[in-house]
Formats: sequence, structure tokens, C-alpha cells
Amino acid sequence: MNHEILRGIKTPGDVKKIDEKMLPLLAEEVRDTIISTVSKTGGHLASNLGAVELTIAIHKVFNSPDDKIIWDVGHQVYTHKLLTGRYEEFATLRQEGGISGFSRPNESEHDIVYSGHSSVSISTALGIAAANKVNGKKDYAVAVIGDGALTGGLVYEALNNAGRMKDARLIIILNDNGMSISKNVGHLAKRLAKMRSRSGYYKLKAVTEKIVSKIPFVGKKIADEIFRIKTNVKNMMYQSNFFEDMGVTYMGPIDGHDIPQLCNALEGAKIIDGPVLVHVNTVKGKGYEPAENNPSDFHGVPAFDYVDGALPEPKENFSEHFGEFLFNQAAKDKRICAITAAMSLGTGLKKFSEKYPDRFFDVGIAEEHAVPFALGVSKSNMVPVFVVYSTFLQRCYDQLLHDCALQQSKMIIAVDRAGVVGDDGETHNGIYDTAFFNGIPNITVYSPTYYAELNNAFVNALYHVEGPCVIRYPRGAEPEMPEDYVCSGNSFDVFGDENAEIAIVTYGRIFGESYKAYKRLKSEGINLKIIKLNVVVPIPEEAINAIRNVRKVFMFEEGVKSGGVGESFASVMLENKLDPEFYLTAFPDCFVKQGKTESIFKQYKLDCDGMISTVKENL
Amino acid sequence: MNHEILRGIKTPGDVKKIDEKMLPLLAEEVRDTIISTVSKTGGHLASNLGAVELTIAIHKVFNSPDDKIIWDVGHQVYTHKLLTGRYEEFATLRQEGGISGFSRPNESEHDIVYSGHSSVSISTALGIAAANKVNGKKDYAVAVIGDGALTGGLVYEALNNAGRMKDARLIIILNDNGMSISKNVGHLAKRLAKMRSRSGYYKLKAVTEKIVSKIPFVGKKIADEIFRIKTNVKNMMYQSNFFEDMGVTYMGPIDGHDIPQLCNALEGAKIIDGPVLVHVNTVKGKGYEPAENNPSDFHGVPAFDYVDGALPEPKENFSEHFGEFLFNQAAKDKRICAITAAMSLGTGLKKFSEKYPDRFFDVGIAEEHAVPFALGVSKSNMVPVFVVYSTFLQRCYDQLLHDCALQQSKMIIAVDRAGVVGDDGETHNGIYDTAFFNGIPNITVYSPTYYAELNNAFVNALYHVEGPCVIRYPRGAEPEMPEDYVCSGNSFDVFGDENAEIAIVTYGRIFGESYKAYKRLKSEGINLKIIKLNVVVPIPEEAINAIRNVRKVFMFEEGVKSGGVGESFASVMLENKLDPEFYLTAFPDCFVKQGKTESIFKQYKLDCDGMISTVKENL
Repeated sequence: MNHEILRGIKTPGDVKKIDEKMLPLLAEEVRDTIISTVSKTGGHLASNLGAVELTIAIHKVFNSPDDKIIWDVGHQVYTHKLLTGRYEEFATLRQEGGISGFSRPNESEHDIVYSGHSSVSISTALGIAAANKVNGKKDYAVAVIGDGALTGGLVYEALNNAGRMKDARLIIILNDNGMSISKNVGHLAKRLAKMRSRSGYYKLKAVTEKIVSKIPFVGKKIADEIFRIKTNVKNMMYQSNFFEDMGVTYMGPIDGHDIPQLCNALEGAKIIDGPVLVHVNTVKGKGYEPAENNPSDFHGVPAFDYVDGALPEPKENFSEHFGEFLFNQAAKDKRICAITAAMSLGTGLKKFSEKYPDRFFDVGIAEEHAVPFALGVSKSNMVPVFVVYSTFLQRCYDQLLHDCALQQSKMIIAVDRAGVVGDDGETHNGIYDTAFFNGIPNITVYSPTYYAELNNAFVNALYHVEGPCVIRYPRGAEPEMPEDYVCSGNSFDVFGDENAEIAIVTYGRIFGESYKAYKRLKSEGINLKIIKLNVVVPIPEEAINAIRNVRKVFMFEEGVKSGGVGESFASVMLENKLDPEFYLTAFPDCFVKQGKTESIFKQYKLDCDGMISTVKENL
Repeated sequence: MNHEILRGIKTPGDVKKIDEKMLPLLAEEVRDTIISTVSKTGGHLASNLGAVELTIAIHKVFNSPDDKIIWDVGHQVYTHKLLTGRYEEFATLRQEGGISGFSRPNESEHDIVYSGHSSVSISTALGIAAANKVNGKKDYAVAVIGDGALTGGLVYEALNNAGRMKDARLIIILNDNGMSISKNVGHLAKRLAKMRSRSGYYKLKAVTEKIVSKIPFVGKKIADEIFRIKTNVKNMMYQSNFFEDMGVTYMGPIDGHDIPQLCNALEGAKIIDGPVLVHVNTVKGKGYEPAENNPSDFHGVPAFDYVDGALPEPKENFSEHFGEFLFNQAAKDKRICAITAAMSLGTGLKKFSEKYPDRFFDVGIAEEHAVPFALGVSKSNMVPVFVVYSTFLQRCYDQLLHDCALQQSKMIIAVDRAGVVGDDGETHNGIYDTAFFNGIPNITVYSPTYYAELNNAFVNALYHVEGPCVIRYPRGAEPEMPEDYVCSGNSFDVFGDENAEIAIVTYGRIFGESYKAYKRLKSEGINLKIIKLNVVVPIPEEAINAIRNVRKVFMFEEGVKSGGVGESFASVMLENKLDPEFYLTAFPDCFVKQGKTESIFKQYKLDCDGMISTVKENL
């Protein structure tokens, strides 16, 4: 496909100039660009395909960047990128140095905020609208949010605040594909489904025509009134409506693939006083059959075959391994309950959910709720296992302190994608959890390198450790093993030359790199030992003894430096009157950008070569 | 008053034995006990007075601890304590070694969880109900939650999950005093007010009589049906109802001071299948005129005069100072907006809110929302100042990373009650923020000792530092000053003997203790210097230079040790090839219990005496 129209679009202003009749063709070009690119780069496909017409309509109706469009999460931002001057770079999507799969202000003035975590868009847009009001600015703040994100409590907090700002120029566009990441949970989803299934779409045309004919001279109030009456009538049809209850005017549902109808609705929303929610129905995966048929599998994809839509077989990895192990444990121990926050597919829990539906709880994008919910489960003599990505676990820091650590109830937190995640970039890296667990009392944190250690940690957590336990493991597979490797079950292991005066201290998967470094250095006549921490919080005391006669300690950590395990280790050494030279390599005070994991390790000197050069420079 | 009935109650079973006619007298005795105790110990008064009859009814109707009652926050838990065998110890309320002002499982099997943070009770109760179902237990899980806590998104997440668990034995009691801590915010509060103001209370008696006559033989289904019809009729009267939209059966409103009516309603709720919410109207401060007239001032009180209700004049403190300073700055710089999460009184923002209502935003108990909202405000060229207690700031860890640090927008986080808070105990201490900020990139954290330094930090944050800044300050007043003290405006200061071989490193208010220690040690011929950090994250690099010739470093930190500033300092020293003896005194891996701040400092050796003994033991 030639992308003739799309190629000509450098700014949203160019979208406005395109003849209305040509817009469906534009949509087709956009779709083709997205599918062909994502089939090579991987990315979020189905959700982006659902938002093509909606995005075109948004840029027809609003004036970005004066009107500020906030994309929730960013799983629907590709069309926006293509319409705001990033067509030429789009092939670099999610590549190192390329454009991000999410909203990134350093790419474009049309990307207002860095996005990646769910359910915050209404809050941010409301802040903009509130400040605009103080500043006397008439611009709009627009939040585009999916139905999945609606399960997050932040949305409710924001709506509750929006409802009382009667003159805020806030427009919330609910992009409702009825799916979210996998299937939507919660009672509200049912209500949305009910609204969605109504046959008669909101007929706005007549109303807006009237409005347009009268504006900007005398018509605003009258049009407003007409509009309001229509809205009220329509609302009565739906009776109780969650959004109206929160004080936000509800409009919809609108066909999310009908550009003229979308434009009419959005123009209408601009005219209504105060916060408005426009409910838009979209089809996840729209326009690409394999994705339409199988939207969950095509939510986030690796590179795949454009023609037949064949997805590559998933490789063995920690998530699948953990899911399988938990599944097997659950057969033996009937107390085990699995809890996830809309991550059942990503964390390998599908089989568990099918076999043990009564012990499986997908709470939606509601990590804050998951932890006190797990506490309740444990108070009724079951063992909750909360499985969650590291980056989203950040959402429940307070609950980990208040509803987990303080309570000392049995609870297992399985932290998936701990460490660098690669292509998703700075909003998704799980490099903070070690630091924040470090500051939470009474929690034991395991950071296994190998599947066998993951199993062992889980069994320990289940039967031997009092109170809550965390087991963190990375995205991807276990690294290569030393030939004579045996899972010791200890809180730390020592490898290499026990009497060496040089020690590497590390944990998690980068032990694999350090072991390679050890072997290469040994072949060059440089002897060292490796202390591999299996428990990282608190630091195992005896691990300190293992470096008693060591002159140089090289610590490598796949996590933030400040507040992390390495700094604790340094402090414990000093407090124990050990003062070897200390070289700590970890992530500095910055956000780690997208790139392949190996490449990021290289960049931050956490790979074998980097470790070797750090050691050699300081011999 | 003699407390004859109350004195005889050792367990909730005893409540059930009391003749119904005597219950109002019991309520009177409870009230008298609460008022007279709190007038001596301080505590949460008005909210507890509002929940006396409700709590009596709860213990009449439910069988604690088989039925598990979860008290949200715990501002309404005093009556529960008195009815569960803690009458004799009640005089020790909030005293060191005494009983807590909140729910504490180590006090009683009737306190199911440690409580203190808002809006989690429904989640926990739902977890219990869900696990009970798996276990085949017929017990009830009961959440008692105030209307203020309803502004937190956790409630919505929990309700949304509850709504689809159709057979969960979950009863939510909404204790609606229409006030929350100060005045309720958000649109939902308006809806509640509307419901509250209906003249005709829910008439349950007839229904429950019918039910009681038929149970347990054949009546359950029929009674249920009758009940359902009644409920539906009533709900139609209220039309749209937020709770029914979430899938939770709504009952109410009930007169929260009418014990028979309350008992009827709760018995009715037990019979309904699935999650029920019972809406109870209470009067905050009920039965004590000064508190009824002025419920906000009597929410949390110090010791006061029982007879005339005279509250002591508030002493000068950091909160008031900050509020005043911000107020003055706001006159000069029209960009300043103040944001609080239901803490405007506690943080000294009252004057600001009155003078600049358009630049003042109380978002309710919704810390998660506050940060992305602030981001929006900053994106529209205003300067948001989010003023929040340290312990509640934990709620927005993820937002601090994702919507603040990553964005690098101008935002000031003013962290009140940073450090030990004293009487409220382990759920309220602000001793974690240094550690969690430590692990967040790109944020500058100030920890002033004196008001002048607070002012200076604020001006720096406003005009000189790029991106977000944190200013943390303790509950209470600034400590004593060195005679020759001048606010330097530097990131650290050195006091004492510059050439000393012993250094104390510290920050924040306990510098006052360290300076006293310095003077006393000096008088005994022991010379040292003090490095006082004004910026604590990141560690000011030159501060390390100040200890280049030091043999012993004693670090004192009013914060958690693990992951905190002291460990970072140790690591930076070692990495800079400095290896003095290092003694780090900070809060170990535990939760700090209630007690006077001075007493806690003494216990953890963070007071002058403790510092001196630590230094002397290691000379």
C-alpha cells in the first residue's frame, strides 16, 4: 500500500484539511502501516487497530497541542503518532533509539505526558482543565481511556473530583472494546456491556446541526439546552448510569468506526458545559482478521507473519514456569489461591484459572485492592499468591506496607518481569522493586536465578517462612548454568575460588553473566569468587562472612542503585568493620530507555564484558 | 458515672445478653468512658462518639470473631474495644505500652487486622468472604466504613469486585456522618447527602418480623423475596444508586442512633444473598455538645477540658508554619496551587483555601489521584504544591515515579509528619519516605531542620531546581538552634570542630539532639563535627569530602535503616575509598509502636543521651 495520504500528514492541522470522503482511506493506510510495522517490531496491535477512526476524529475536532490529549496507558497511541509527524520514523517503533510504543513528550509536543501505567489519564486531564480555568484558557483537556483501565480506582477518584468542577473543559473519551487486555472483570463491565448492546446509537447529527447554525453568535446557550434535553431523555432510557452518578454528563454509545458520527459527537461534547464522557464502541483488532478473531492474543505481540497472522510459539520462560509450578502446587495444597490484576495471560495463570476457578481471582487493573483482598483471604486460612508485574506492583506500595508487612499474615507476592523488560521502555522496567522492598520491614525477598530456585523459594515461602514473602523473577528464560550447579536452597551461594581476594556479589539472572565473566577471567589467570544472593532483602548476614578476607568487592545489580541491595550490602560491610574496595554497578538515577535487554545490560555494564572490564580497570 | 453495665462486658457474647431496654444506658456509659478518657489521653473523639449505637448493634447481631468485623481506618473503633474486653485498659489509650487508638490484632482476637490507612476495609472483608466461600464457611465478613473513606479509589475497586461475587457473605456498613475528617468532597458526597436527607427511614421491622417467624425452616427464600421487593421499591424511589450500579444491594438509610432499628437492618442484611451495603446515618460527635457543634475540631484532639470542651491552643509547629509560608508565597506567585487529600486542617492550609479557593484543591482521600492531577496542573503552567502526610504519601508511590519523577514537570511535594508521629503508632509513622524516595530517580528531597530551611527549600524548589522537589518536615516544632546558627541555603552544613576525627552525620529535626550531644561531649573533652544534610536524596557529593579525614562516622537517622539515607551514605563513602568506622543508628526492620516522640527517640537511641552513649561505646 502506498500511504499517499498518510505520508502527507505532518501535523494534526493536515488531518483537518483532508476531504471527509478520503478519511476512510486514510484509516486504511494507517491500519496497513500499523500492522506491517508491528508484524516486524512487535507491539500492541489489537488495541491500536481499534482506535484508528477515533484518533482521526479526535485530531479533526481538537486542536492539539493547545487542546491537550492524554492517552491512558498508551496502547492506543500509534495512530496519534502517525498523525503527528512520526510516519517516517514509525518503522523504528520500540527499537533502541527509535520511537516508543507509548506517549513520550521527548518525541513530540503532541505527547503531553509519559504514559505506560493505567487509569491516570482522567486525573491528568482534570488537572489541566482545572489549571486552564484558573488561567482563563478556553482549551480542552481530553482523556482517552479504555474500558479495561476503568477498573482502576484512580478513575473513580478522578471522576468524583471532575463531577464537582462544573465548568471544567474536560472531555473523557471511553474507548470501549469490551475486552481490556484479556476479558474485563467486575460488575461495571457488565453495565457497560448492557449500554453497548443497545441497538440505537446516539443520534447527534440533528442536534449538532442546530448548534452549528447558531454558534458563535447567540446559540451556545440554546444549543446547550437542546442538547441537554436530548441527553436527559437518552439517559432516562438507560436509567441509572454510573457516570451521571459521578456528576459527569454521559453521551453515547457512539460507533467508534464511523468517523462522521465520531466527529459529531466530539463537537457536541465540546459544547456541553462541564465534564463530559463520550462512550465510544470499538472493535479490538478492527480491520485485521486474525486480531479481530483473537484480540487477547493480539493485544501485545512479538513479530509475526502479516499474511497469515501466525504468532510465533512462546519460548519457555519464568512466567510459564511459575504458572505451571503454581498449578501443580495448587493440586496438592488446597489452600492456595491465585490473585492477579488483569495479568493472567502474561503471568502464566491461564491453566490455573481454568482448573481452579473458585480459587482464582482476577481483580482487574486494581493492584491496590489486590493486597488487602489477599490479606482477607489469608485471614480465612487460605494462602493467597498475588502474581503481578514488578512495574505494576508499584501501585500497591502502601498496601505492601500496611496490609501485608505490618499484618504478618501468610501471603506470597510473585513478582514477574522484575528487572529490565526491554522494548516497553522507561515506564515498564521492574528495576525499582528491590529498592522499595528494601525499605519495608518484615518481608523476605527471594530473587532466584534459576527455575529450580524459584520452586525452592515458593516452597519455603509456603511452608517454612513466617509472614509474607516475595519471589521476584525476570521476563524471559533462566540463564545458562554452571556445569556443576546444584540448587542449594540456601540464602546465598558461593561459586568460584573460595580463597580469592576478589569477589563479585550479585543476584538474579545476571548471575549468568557474572559466571561467564568468572570463567573468562580465570582463563586469563584472574581468580575470583562469586557470592550469589538468593535472598536479597534482608541481606543474609553470613554472606558478609564470605567476603571477610576479600580486598575488592564488585557488586552488580539489575536494579536501581540508590536505596538498593548493593548499598545495603555496603553498609552492612562497613558496619561489620569490613572495608574492601567497593565497586557498585547498578542503574543510576535515571529512567532506562527501550532497547533489547542484552543491549541495556551492555550499556550499563551489567553483561559479561562490562563486568570483566570493571574488574580489570580496578585490579 | 458508674459504668455498671459496661464493666460487666468481657466479650461480645455479654452484649447479646443485655436486655434491649438497657442498651441506651450502655451507650451512655460507653460515651462517658470515651469522652472522659480522650479528654485525658487525646484521640479521635467525634467519629467515635458517632458510632456507639452502631457498634452495640453490630455486636448484638454478629458473632465476632467468627464473623469478622473490619473497621476501616479505625476512627470508630473505641466502642468495639470497650465491648471486647478492653474496658479496664481503656485508660491507657494511645499511651506507650497501652492500647492503640486503632484496630490491633495483638490486643484482641476481635481486631482482625492492623488498621490506620483508609478505604481498605471492603477489600479485606471481600477477601475473607471469598475465602469463606471456598472453605464452605457460613460466617459473615463485615466492613464498617465512613463516608470520608468512600472518596478513595480502593473502595470502588473493591465494590466492583464484590458486585460479581453474588454469593459472598459480605456486609458493608456505611457509617455516614456527612463529614469525614473535615468536609466531604466530590460529587458522590452530594449524592449521599441527597439520600441522607430523605425523611422516611427504611422501615424494616415488618419485613424482619416476617423473616424471623419463618426461619430457619422454610422461610429464607420467601423472606428474601419479600425483602428484595421492598428493597427494589425503595431503590426506585432513589432511582439511580451508585451502589446498586456496582452490583451491591443497597439498604438504607438507617438511623444510626436507634439500636433496635440498626439491629433489624443488620439482621435483614444477613438474609440477603450476596454483598449488601447498609447505609447508616450518624451524627459526628453525638452526645457531647462541643463535639456535635464542632465535629471537625473534635475529630482528632489532644487532651482537653471535659466540662467546657475547651481545646488547648495549638502550639507553633511545622504544619502551621508551612501553611503560612505557602499562603504568603501564593500572594506573590499566582502560579501556586495547593493540593491536599483531605488533610487541609492538619497541614495548615485553611487560610489558603479561604483566600484562594480557585487555586486550592482538596481531592478527598485520593492520594493516587492527587499526583497525576498535579501533573496536569503543571502542564498548564501552574505550580502544584501537594501537601500530604508522609504515611499517606505511601499511597502514591507509583504515581511519584510514573507521574512525577519520570515527567520532570515542576511539582512540589510537601511531606508533613515525616518521621515519628507518636501516639498514633505503627500505622502512622512517616519513617519510610526517605527510603522510598531514595529509590526514585530524578527527585530532590529536602529535609529541613528549621523553619528558615523549610522556607529556603521551598524557594529553591520553586525557582531554582528543575523538575520535582520534595520537602519533608516533622510533626511538631523546630528544635533548639545553635547560638550562632545561620541558614546557609547549602545542601549540607558542618557544625562543631572541623578538624575532628569523629563525625556525626544526620538530618532533619534530630540534628537538635545531635547538637546537644556535641556540646556535652565537647565539655567532656571529646571533639567532633556534625555534618547536617539538608538535601538527603541524592546525597550531596561534597558532604563526603567533609569526612575525608574522619576515622569514625556516627550516622543518626529518623527513618528506616534498610534502603535509607544512611546506607546510601555508607555506599558512597566506600565507593569513594573512604572507610571510616561506621555506626548507623536508624529504625531497624520493625514497625515502631505508639509512644511519645521523645520516648521513641530514647528507645531507639536517637536522642541526645543515646547518641552520646553510642559515640562513647565506640571511641
